[in-house]
Amino acid sequence: MSLEGQYDTENIFAKILRGDMPCVKVYEDEQVLAFMDIFPQAPGHVLVVPREPARNLLEMTDGALQGAMLRVKWISKAVKKALAPDGIVMTQFSGAPAGQTVFHVHFHIIPRREGETLSGHGSGQADMDELKNLAGKIAAEIELP
Amino acid sequence: MSLEGQYDTENIFAKILRGDMPCVKVYEDEQVLAFMDIFPQAPGHVLVVPREPARNLLEMTDGALQGAMLRVKWISKAVKKALAPDGIVMTQFSGAPAGQTVFHVHFHIIPRREGETLSGHGSGQADMDELKNLAGKIAAEIELP
Repeated sequence: MSLEGQYDTENIFAKILRGDMPCVKVYEDEQVLAFMDIFPQAPGHVLVVPREPARNLLEMTDGALQGAMLRVKWISKAVKKALAPDGIVMTQFSGAPAGQTVFHVHFHIIPRREGETLSGHGSGQADMDELKNLAGKIAAEIELP
Repeated sequence: MSLEGQYDTENIFAKILRGDMPCVKVYEDEQVLAFMDIFPQAPGHVLVVPREPARNLLEMTDGALQGAMLRVKWISKAVKKALAPDGIVMTQFSGAPAGQTVFHVHFHIIPRREGETLSGHGSGQADMDELKNLAGKIAAEIELP
């Protein structure tokens, strides 16, 4: 799917937002749901998913985008405190040729460590107990303003 | 530089923001300066640089982050109109191990085309006339709200 097209209410993140599919939750409020990527590019890879049904950043309303980015910051700071990475990549893909695989807008927060290369997205599913453990550590460090 | 440290007022983007170094400008206002990456990962690679002196996203104030992201959206939409890419990558690196090379927070907008791989950042400096041409095309499509 390129940058053109229609929002599909049956995408997997829409199902997770509706509660029709499970996730390993890190945080939620009226604006976003954040959960662990089950195909992490590095340990601690979190997805921040706005509740607004937009396919990508270009389609988001101003309010939803601004609200989502504050939560990306809060969760990034929690990832830093919980996991002490050497760096953090924040990224958002619009369109399949950009690397987007689920067509509901989402922001990746990926902890980076010196000397570690990233796994290819989709290269392997994470251990669920490990994901739950990481989610708990990150959730415990989220400080709301 | 990791996630710890102090903001260095002599970083190259601080110099560009002060007007002490040139750039190929795409857009500017009271909140951000946006210009072409001179080591583009793909043709049309734009950097959106908040004026706030923060090293990374985690250090940004809420207002600066929210203002910057609206401008990332405006410019991404202009990139779509001007260059008709198949996708767009938006990314921000915090810390050298995450890929950050200039320690003033900045957001990358990278047009992607089906079947084209990205150049490594810093793999080669772009032709200045081509950058100016791309900047002009993108700037002409920016629609302010």
